[in-house]
Amino acid sequence: VTNDNNRKYRLPKTMGNFKGHALPGSFFLLFGLWWSVKYPLKYACRKNKNACYLGSRAGFQRLEFVEGIIKAVFALIGMVAEQFVPDGPHLKLYNYEEKHWDHLMNWQHATMYLFYGISGLVDIVAHGTNTLPVAMDRMMLSLAVFIEGFLFCYHLHGRAMLDVHVHQLLLFAIFGAAVCIFLEVFFRGSIVLEMLRTSLCILQGSWFWQIGFVLYPPNGSPEWNQTDHTNMMFLTMCYCWHYAFAFLILAVNYTIVSCLFSLAGALS
Amino acid sequence: VTNDNNRKYRLPKTMGNFKGHALPGSFFLLFGLWWSVKYPLKYACRKNKNACYLGSRAGFQRLEFVEGIIKAVFALIGMVAEQFVPDGPHLKLYNYEEKHWDHLMNWQHATMYLFYGISGLVDIVAHGTNTLPVAMDRMMLSLAVFIEGFLFCYHLHGRAMLDVHVHQLLLFAIFGAAVCIFLEVFFRGSIVLEMLRTSLCILQGSWFWQIGFVLYPPNGSPEWNQTDHTNMMFLTMCYCWHYAFAFLILAVNYTIVSCLFSLAGALS
Amino acid sequence: VTNDNNRKYRLPKTMGNFKGHALPGSFFLLFGLWWSVKYPLKYACRKNKNACYLGSRAGFQRLEFVEGIIKAVFALIGMVAEQFVPDGPHLKLYNYEEKHWDHLMNWQHATMYLFYGISGLVDIVAHGTNTLPVAMDRMMLSLAVFIEGFLFCYHLHGRAMLDVHVHQLLLFAIFGAAVCIFLEVFFRGSIVLEMLRTSLCILQGSWFWQIGFVLYPPNGSPEWNQTDHTNMMFLTMCYCWHYAFAFLILAVNYTIVSCLFSLAGALS
Amino acid sequence: VTNDNNRKYRLPKTMGNFKGHALPGSFFLLFGLWWSVKYPLKYACRKNKNACYLGSRAGFQRLEFVEGIIKAVFALIGMVAEQFVPDGPHLKLYNYEEKHWDHLMNWQHATMYLFYGISGLVDIVAHGTNTLPVAMDRMMLSLAVFIEGFLFCYHLHGRAMLDVHVHQLLLFAIFGAAVCIFLEVFFRGSIVLEMLRTSLCILQGSWFWQIGFVLYPPNGSPEWNQTDHTNMMFLTMCYCWHYAFAFLILAVNYTIVSCLFSLAGALS
Repeated sequence: VTNDNNRKYRLPKTMGNFKGHALPGSFFLLFGLWWSVKYPLKYACRKNKNACYLGSRAGFQRLEFVEGIIKAVFALIGMVAEQFVPDGPHLKLYNYEEKHWDHLMNWQHATMYLFYGISGLVDIVAHGTNTLPVAMDRMMLSLAVFIEGFLFCYHLHGRAMLDVHVHQLLLFAIFGAAVCIFLEVFFRGSIVLEMLRTSLCILQGSWFWQIGFVLYPPNGSPEWNQTDHTNMMFLTMCYCWHYAFAFLILAVNYTIVSCLFSLAGALS
Repeated sequence: VTNDNNRKYRLPKTMGNFKGHALPGSFFLLFGLWWSVKYPLKYACRKNKNACYLGSRAGFQRLEFVEGIIKAVFALIGMVAEQFVPDGPHLKLYNYEEKHWDHLMNWQHATMYLFYGISGLVDIVAHGTNTLPVAMDRMMLSLAVFIEGFLFCYHLHGRAMLDVHVHQLLLFAIFGAAVCIFLEVFFRGSIVLEMLRTSLCILQGSWFWQIGFVLYPPNGSPEWNQTDHTNMMFLTMCYCWHYAFAFLILAVNYTIVSCLFSLAGALS
Repeated sequence: VTNDNNRKYRLPKTMGNFKGHALPGSFFLLFGLWWSVKYPLKYACRKNKNACYLGSRAGFQRLEFVEGIIKAVFALIGMVAEQFVPDGPHLKLYNYEEKHWDHLMNWQHATMYLFYGISGLVDIVAHGTNTLPVAMDRMMLSLAVFIEGFLFCYHLHGRAMLDVHVHQLLLFAIFGAAVCIFLEVFFRGSIVLEMLRTSLCILQGSWFWQIGFVLYPPNGSPEWNQTDHTNMMFLTMCYCWHYAFAFLILAVNYTIVSCLFSLAGALS
Repeated sequence: VTNDNNRKYRLPKTMGNFKGHALPGSFFLLFGLWWSVKYPLKYACRKNKNACYLGSRAGFQRLEFVEGIIKAVFALIGMVAEQFVPDGPHLKLYNYEEKHWDHLMNWQHATMYLFYGISGLVDIVAHGTNTLPVAMDRMMLSLAVFIEGFLFCYHLHGRAMLDVHVHQLLLFAIFGAAVCIFLEVFFRGSIVLEMLRTSLCILQGSWFWQIGFVLYPPNGSPEWNQTDHTNMMFLTMCYCWHYAFAFLILAVNYTIVSCLFSLAGALS
């Protein structure tokens, strides 16, 4: 019986392939890379106020507003895509003929996107109007990330050991980011927390890609042995390398931004 | 033997039915809805002080005082009801003839209410007199919520998988609220934490209703399969929808309050 | 083999009886009761400065100094007692003839006392001289409590279900207190945290007594059934009642102190 | 199959011996001892500013810069050593002939050192230039310690009970230090947190030595029985004694530094 049940929800077409992991990975990478430029810029602006042309507080507020729009649009696209891909649920939740839930995986992903969408909406309202306290944006983002992790925890029943392990590693980045963003509610504008969040976001993005490569090796490369303990150990270590790599990107972008600012300061 | 034991404490009449879940759910919904009006009002008052007629600090303090009374009264009613319903324990704790504890479930619920009652009393004293530091109200509320969760953890032994799962989901809302309220001891008046607490309170209320519908389907609807894994996955997702719904309510109420205030500001 | 091992470390004479639980319980109750007078007094002093005769800051600092001495002396007595009771280890750690560790339980208790002793010493130095930052006293106390809990975790292997359960309940009070005291490092003098700590200390004390009554019923009362699930449920609830009782004591003492102060204020 | 796998990664030559535990232990002890002098010195400097010759803020900043260099160099040496010891991996990650990962243990240790190296680099940049916010040094150190603990968690599969236990005890010191250092991001310069970190660093160092003595008894002393439960209990207690010992060292160094300062103050 368990096997039959499994078959119904274990092999969704949208997510259970290489592309299904590369896509969200790309989104997180995109945001991570953008943040790795934005926050050093903001910090440099705050420090040397003369050299800063565009970086007035209003400018950065407008950026957060735009970010909110992009987040909401991405989330909407994601939700629509999960519903209306050729073998998505098309808004049908329960299959009354065969008496089982329909495409639960797609619904779960749509739910994840929903909360990112709400977070985007809150960003728009908090930074576009002045009715909402700005700190709400961080709280909603923190909740969206937390709920992503929360739903991920229930993705993993009955899978192979390596599959579970690579997703569990992802949970560290997710819950770490959720805690970090929640701290930002109280320590808003702390560059340290912003950098930490950025690094965890890049890590999440690049690890999504890694999961894709491990579980669905493209180009006919050989499958990974799902029960070999050394594979698990290697991937744990590999996860740390991804994180080191995330810090490398942060360092490079930080250096470029700093240098440009020194240059601008010297010229002006 | 385990079965016999189970029979004694697994099927209390007061709680183990639809009404027994709908009642506490309604209380939490009531408080959540009230807070979803009160805190936006308080925030709006603090921001535009001219437009604010009743919202002096004393007014809100009086509100907290009244809240304390309501909480204490509700808790007292709850405790009395749990004790003196037709097949309640009537203050009898141990059945000496049959040598077993009597109606432990009712006693546990009464204990939960007891701490909400203490929290209500502390509210009354802290906001009615000036002998007690006001922050005590949040600490006691946090403890009351924590103890509710603590006792819930020991409700779940030996039940069916789905039953355990829906109650475990509830624990996230409960312990989340306990942590959130404890943070309010140190960040008192933070609108973000107040909104978070409100959302978790609404979530708890509506999830109590959902549990009632799942475990005791009214109107002769078919029973849920307690061992089907997909049901668990659906309910996890459903829990997130409840939370999204809680934010929808918050958003609507927040918007109404904000609009009324803008109107009042324009008129005055 | 396990049974043989168990016999060696499961039945220490010092602790494994009613008195062995009543003694530490009394110490914690003593400290809790003292704190339940001291902190309301300190708070009242801080609020109405005229009515306060003895409560200068120096006075309370001297109190903490005296507390440190008492703590250190109690800890020293405890350590010596654990070592030199008739069948204590008498400083012998390893039994070379029979090739096993000697009286590990007594050594563990002595270790617990050691950290309370260190905490007492730090109190003495921090409040007696001005070389040490005062916040160190809370950190050491937090560590002492944490280490008590840490060692307790390894007390519980291979015991009966009920025995494990009542000690696990104790751990909530212990780790709760450790976290609370650690928070006091950063929020020193917060009356809320001080009251929370006091309540957890009273809870710990009274629960030690309860454990004694449950595991070693004095006066020939009947033994508790160690495997009955309902006993576990009752004790969980009973734990909450102890906590409510701790708050009752706090409330009574707080009221008395407040009334005396109002009286003093009215007279002066 | 598991056994065969185990053989491949359970017995690395570099770490799985007495020296392999004594070496990192010595590094942690060295840093711990240095910090146990540095932070009391810094605190004393901040308190009596006249008696302080070298302790200007710039001086301590330069110290942190030098510390960063030492950390980075140590980490580099460690990484190179792990790679190029006679039976290290020599940068080879995968053995294509025998189709298994090569020397995973050495790679894991190199990864640990890598993050300490990054932390060292961040120290250098944060204290050598003024482009990077100084709080970044604590965040990177916290992450380095966290990743050490994270990788340690996956070292322990399939080992004997006592082996697992002594490493688990180490994890308390590691994760405790990681949390403590992360708190320093927000409470920078808090002497209490600095002392706590120092004590946990000394504990980690001395416990590494203890692990060496327990698992690889030098000089032909008899092996420890890996499955005896009392050994586990003794080692738990022994861990606490190490911690008490760490505080003894701290106390001695603190006293010496304080006395020297009083002397200097009296002379000047």
